[in-house]
Amino acid sequence: MPPPDSDFDLQMMHRAIRLASEAAAIGEVPVGAVICQGQTVLAEAGNLRERSQDPTAHAEVLALRQAAEVLGSWRLIGCTMYVTLEPCPMCAGALVNARVDRLVYGASDPKMGCCRTFYELCDEPRFNHRMEVVPGVLAEETGQLLSQFFQARRQASKK
Amino acid sequence: MPPPDSDFDLQMMHRAIRLASEAAAIGEVPVGAVICQGQTVLAEAGNLRERSQDPTAHAEVLALRQAAEVLGSWRLIGCTMYVTLEPCPMCAGALVNARVDRLVYGASDPKMGCCRTFYELCDEPRFNHRMEVVPGVLAEETGQLLSQFFQARRQASKK
Repeated sequence: MPPPDSDFDLQMMHRAIRLASEAAAIGEVPVGAVICQGQTVLAEAGNLRERSQDPTAHAEVLALRQAAEVLGSWRLIGCTMYVTLEPCPMCAGALVNARVDRLVYGASDPKMGCCRTFYELCDEPRFNHRMEVVPGVLAEETGQLLSQFFQARRQASKK
Repeated sequence: MPPPDSDFDLQMMHRAIRLASEAAAIGEVPVGAVICQGQTVLAEAGNLRERSQDPTAHAEVLALRQAAEVLGSWRLIGCTMYVTLEPCPMCAGALVNARVDRLVYGASDPKMGCCRTFYELCDEPRFNHRMEVVPGVLAEETGQLLSQFFQARRQASKK
């Protein structure tokens, strides 16, 4: 049995859920991400792909870039990423490239998930960096955000 | 036997090699990338990770973001990426996310390559997009750029 998620982990995942809800409110697929170094929040972002028309503007990539700017370094030593959805291959690879220590995520992504679903890129033993991966934190709430968003979009498109 | 690389493919790979050499000249790991739509060059970039201290500033990601800005869309329909080195998981995933049609690359990456070496993320049948992958174009030249760069760096660190 893994240890129960800490209060701090849950608090940060709730913060990521708020960012995801804000993304949904502007028509973005609701995903939110927070990066902490120890217990200091360095960066946070919601998915912004549609607004920015940037194919790389997932919440995770935006938060990683912000955190690197705050630290003045591409190496995010001692950092944890909290994200509402299992990262895709791009975001999982970006986490490895940024040398993040720990990934905590909510819902699994049955379409593009590359941290447990299709591959395990964040703790792949052959890469030059690996991190601790904690899946399924507040999985129900984070999953509901997405299913409600897509359900509403399907209903809107029928009108 | 695959068909020989077209003159245009070779011309674009030579252009990517020039970008990689320019990156090396400012102390960056020499990787260069060009994106074309048909035979029109939309974007080009060299690796800029050290200068920008941005963990996502690989040549491929920079070129993808530029091309999306030119097109005003995150969907890079009908586009080919030429890159001197086999993309890492982040860049391979970004190519899938951007719906790129075709990837042409030079040298294999024995450390992080995710298009043939460790995984085949760019033509993974379970993802929502796949592209044509053409590996090993001007592999000797593109590989030499990298080996010369790392050899020079090792010699410099011994002094």
